[in-house]
This record gives sequence, structure tokens and C-alpha cells, in this order.
Amino acid sequence: MTQPIRIGILGYGNLGRGVESAVRQNPDMTLAAVFTRRDPQSLRLLTPGVPVYPAAEAPAHRDGIDVLILCGGSATDLPVQTPDMARFFHVVDSFDTHANIPAHFAAVDEAAKAAGTVALISCGWDPGMFSLNRVYASAVLPEGRDYTFWGKGVSQGHSDAIRRIEGVADARQYTIPVPEALQSVRSGACPELSTRQKHTRECFVVLKEGADAARVEHEIKTMPNYFADYDTTVHFISTEELRRDHSGIPHGGFVIRSGRTGWENEHQHVIEYSLKLDSNPEFTASVIVAYARAVARMAAQGQSGCKTVLDVAPALLCPQDPAWLREHML
Amino acid sequence: MTQPIRIGILGYGNLGRGVESAVRQNPDMTLAAVFTRRDPQSLRLLTPGVPVYPAAEAPAHRDGIDVLILCGGSATDLPVQTPDMARFFHVVDSFDTHANIPAHFAAVDEAAKAAGTVALISCGWDPGMFSLNRVYASAVLPEGRDYTFWGKGVSQGHSDAIRRIEGVADARQYTIPVPEALQSVRSGACPELSTRQKHTRECFVVLKEGADAARVEHEIKTMPNYFADYDTTVHFISTEELRRDHSGIPHGGFVIRSGRTGWENEHQHVIEYSLKLDSNPEFTASVIVAYARAVARMAAQGQSGCKTVLDVAPALLCPQDPAWLREHML
Repeated sequence: MTQPIRIGILGYGNLGRGVESAVRQNPDMTLAAVFTRRDPQSLRLLTPGVPVYPAAEAPAHRDGIDVLILCGGSATDLPVQTPDMARFFHVVDSFDTHANIPAHFAAVDEAAKAAGTVALISCGWDPGMFSLNRVYASAVLPEGRDYTFWGKGVSQGHSDAIRRIEGVADARQYTIPVPEALQSVRSGACPELSTRQKHTRECFVVLKEGADAARVEHEIKTMPNYFADYDTTVHFISTEELRRDHSGIPHGGFVIRSGRTGWENEHQHVIEYSLKLDSNPEFTASVIVAYARAVARMAAQGQSGCKTVLDVAPALLCPQDPAWLREHML
Repeated sequence: MTQPIRIGILGYGNLGRGVESAVRQNPDMTLAAVFTRRDPQSLRLLTPGVPVYPAAEAPAHRDGIDVLILCGGSATDLPVQTPDMARFFHVVDSFDTHANIPAHFAAVDEAAKAAGTVALISCGWDPGMFSLNRVYASAVLPEGRDYTFWGKGVSQGHSDAIRRIEGVADARQYTIPVPEALQSVRSGACPELSTRQKHTRECFVVLKEGADAARVEHEIKTMPNYFADYDTTVHFISTEELRRDHSGIPHGGFVIRSGRTGWENEHQHVIEYSLKLDSNPEFTASVIVAYARAVARMAAQGQSGCKTVLDVAPALLCPQDPAWLREHML
């Protein structure tokens, strides 16, 4: 491809800014436009000279965009935006509500097939790079078991849940894998692990003035789904401490599969994939941008419909041509 | 696929037996035949009821085989066998001489395209799973650097090199990553590492009666290409000790990429993939068998020509259908 791939961004939050930075690292791509539901005048992009348009006007700009990257949230934005935008654009989203992926896939596939576009959903690191590793490892070691651990990292959902408690001014929650559980899995022991045995949760909470710390701590630790099934630690800190020590958005985790081979299953193998990320949204954005390249290529091949990372041959992600990859990377 | 994929094996050594065991772990496959250059009567398969034929007669059995797995060596067998067999069969090989992959690809591609077959080369863990991880990581973190470490594991080539020294009765060589180098890479420091700084070599040698241990040790440690550039340790042991403590063929290693994201490259990320393998040939065979499934599917789609792991969408490796994978693995 001698013409750069023209990328559009819909939604300019942490993820959108991450995409903007990632596009800059890929010389075969250019940022063509940003679309926002806010007042376009209120946005200050990092990239000079790139136009900002109202989200509602996006379809009018379809001829100037090769791939539109959808940077909204999975709860309410993407279920509507991805099928809608797939009518006009080749798109990539990072829809990450695992349980709803089949329904999202069906809705997006219908729109993309009707429009003749390629729409890649659920791109990032989980779902995304972690999914790839679960699939590769299970294909290679069919008699085995896999484990996914998350962290140490900030969970936005859990931090938000704490903030909704009365008396809480701000909060940050870290998900942490239990070291003993990791070691047991790595040893190939294939342990049965409960939710509590796999991860702990650590919370840093800023109280509003006069709030009852004991009640807040109790409400956190007993919150169903979010904390009740975990060993949770709560630290009360000041706004300044939160800002100073907990302003980053690190994350990461581990996908480990152990399995056995041999006529009598006499040999054991452990496959481990891990990520240690300073910035969750920027890494997610970097994965998305690599897949945007693949989407542009699949579209050029005449493909259409909804895809996931499981449908994409790895060579399509790289700017280098296949012969170069065989010579240098294989 | 309701009919099992019929697998043929050409070459019944460690890798061939590994393929036989791996096929048994995959209910959608069946071992249809083994081809050998030895006397077929001399082979005793693990699987009951499977015919063994002379290698030269393989083409006559093409109608009974969906994918032929070539289990010969990279030095002299595969450069001839893979293009030759691709004229009659869809094939998979584990050609692992990295420098000669482009030439091998070209020869196999010509034969496979002319015959309308699919030929997947250089399948295993390096090249293979490690290549995939180098490609994914470099696509996702273009501003970064990757490192491959091998071991701890037995290097057949280095063990053979020691056995060729006068006075050596038998030998086993382990390649070992240097822990400090691994730590430095994991920290994201992107160090420059010399050959000597990345791996050490440990040799267990059985001398012939009357051999001069000091001379053998000197010849090992100064052997160009194989040992001269490494810190090498040599232990002299008895035949019984070699048999008791060093009869396995373990291997493994690490592919690590660290890179930076953000408008000012302000955030650092580390992606690590590692393997810990009890049996190098059996794990290699397990990878090959998963790719044999993908080859059968690409052939059914009407594809032809030479492929590598970089050309194969991950979903093609799994026995489960794409909807199941999206629901359970994504």
C-alpha cells in the first residue's frame, strides 16, 4: 500500500487519544478526522491540522476514511454505534462485555454484510491478545487446562462501583493475581481455583468529609459480584495521595495453559503469555490500530461481515510484506 | 467436518511418533498410514491397525490421505521431500533452518501451486509459536524491541557436534538463558546483549576409554559457531549417569518484546511469551497437528500454494466452530 491508511476516530476519550498516538507510530497510517458527540470546538487534538466533526455527521465523511475506529464504551455506546457505523465504514471496536459478544457479533455482522463492509469487534487485550493465546494454546494442547489472571491493574468498573457508595469522594481499585495461585498453575498442577483463590482486590478510597469509614469499608467488602467473593483490602487516603500515587492506568495479566502429550500423557508442557502495561487504554489502542491495518487489507480483498481477532491471519497486522516477514520474523 | 481428517506420516522417528500421539488426542482426526524409508516390516507403531508403506509408494495412497505430515530433518530430507510430496498431497513440515526459509518457501510454493495443494512449512515452536509471538508483538508495539531466548533445553545440533570430537562416546548439551539478561529484558530496559550475555551452554560428556579429558574440554569450548562465543561448562559423567539423568528431550524459551506508547512515548509495556516443554518433539508434533487441521480447511476452501503460520487465521486451528470460539474463548 503506497497510500497511507486513513483512520477516523469516533469518541475522543482515553482510548481515542491512545489511538491518535498509536497512529503516529505507524508511518503507513494517517489520522484523517475525529468525530465527537461533544462540541467539536471544545476538543484540542494532539495532532495538528486534523479536523473534528460532530459524530452525527460522520457518514458524510465516509469517502475520506478507510477505517473508522470506535472508541466508545461497551455498556451503551458500542451496541448502537458499531452496527450503525458499519453501514458506512469499515470499523474496529473494542467491545469487551464477554457475555454479550455473540449478540453484538450478530447485529454487527448483519449490518456489515448488508453494506459490504468489514467490521472487527472485541479488539484489545482481553478480549483480544488474551483470546488469541487461549485459542492457540488450546488448539496445540487439547488435553490441558487454561487459566486467565488479570493484574496487577486498575479496574475502572470496580473503581466506579466504589465511587457510587455514599460518602466516597473518589476511589481507585487494583485487581491483583494471587502469587501462590500463579505458581501452582505454572507448575502444571492444574489446580481447581475459586474466585477468591485467584485474585485479591485492593482499594484506595478518598472519603467525603464526615463520612463513616467503617461503614464504607463494610459496604465495599460485602458488595455482591464486585467484592464479596474476594479478599479485599481498603485503604483510606487523601485526594493528594490518590492523585500522586494512583493517577496511572496500568494493567496486565497472564494466560497460562498446561497440558500433556505422549502416548500415555507422560509429558507436561506449560505455555504462558503475559502483559505488563503502563497504560491500559494506550496498549488497547495499539492493538486496535494494528487490526485496523488488517481490516483495510481484508476490505481490499473484497471481504465483508463481522470479524474478530480469531479470523485474522497474523501477517495482515504487519506493515512489512509477507516475504520480509518470512525472512526476518519466522 | 463430520468425516475425520485422515493424517499420513512420512518418517517415523521422534517427531513421527509425536504426531501419532497428537493425532490420538484430536477426535476429529485419524491416522491413516505411515510411510518410511526403512523396511516397513521393521516398524512397530503405537496405533493398532494402521498400515506402514515404503516412502516411495506414498503417491499411490494419495486418495486415502487428507494431509501428509513430513517428519524428516531440515538438513537434507525436507528440502527434497516437501516440494516433492506437495505435488501429490496437502502437506505440513517443520523446516527449521531459518536462513533457508525463503528458498524452501519458493520451491514448495511452485510445486504446491502447480498441483493445487496447500503446503504449510516451518511449523513447530521456533519457527512456529515463537514466530507468531514475534509478529503479533511487533505489530502491536512498533516502537520496541524483541528478544528470543531458548532453553533450558537440549540442543540436538550441539550434542551432535560434541559427539563428533575424537574421544567422546556420548554427549548431551543444554542451552540455558542467562537469568540476568532475562531480567533486564523484562524490566523494559531494552539492553544490547551479546551472544555470550544471552545464553550459557552446559555439556555432559561421556569419554571413551583412555580419552584425554582436558583436550576434549578445550576442543568443545573453542569450537567456532557452536561454543566459542559462549560461556560453556563441561561435565564428564558415566554412560549410566547420562542415561539416568539426561535421557529426556526438554526445551522451551521466551519471546519478550518491550515497547513504548503515548504521544511522547511516555508509557512502557512488556509482552512475554514462554514455553516450558518436557518433550520438544511431542510439543512440535502437537503444533503441527493443529496446523494440519487448518491445512485441511484451507484446502477445502480451494486455496493452494505454500503457507506459513503467519498466513493462518487462529480459528482455523480449533476443532470447535467459530461461534463456539467467540462465545467461550474470546
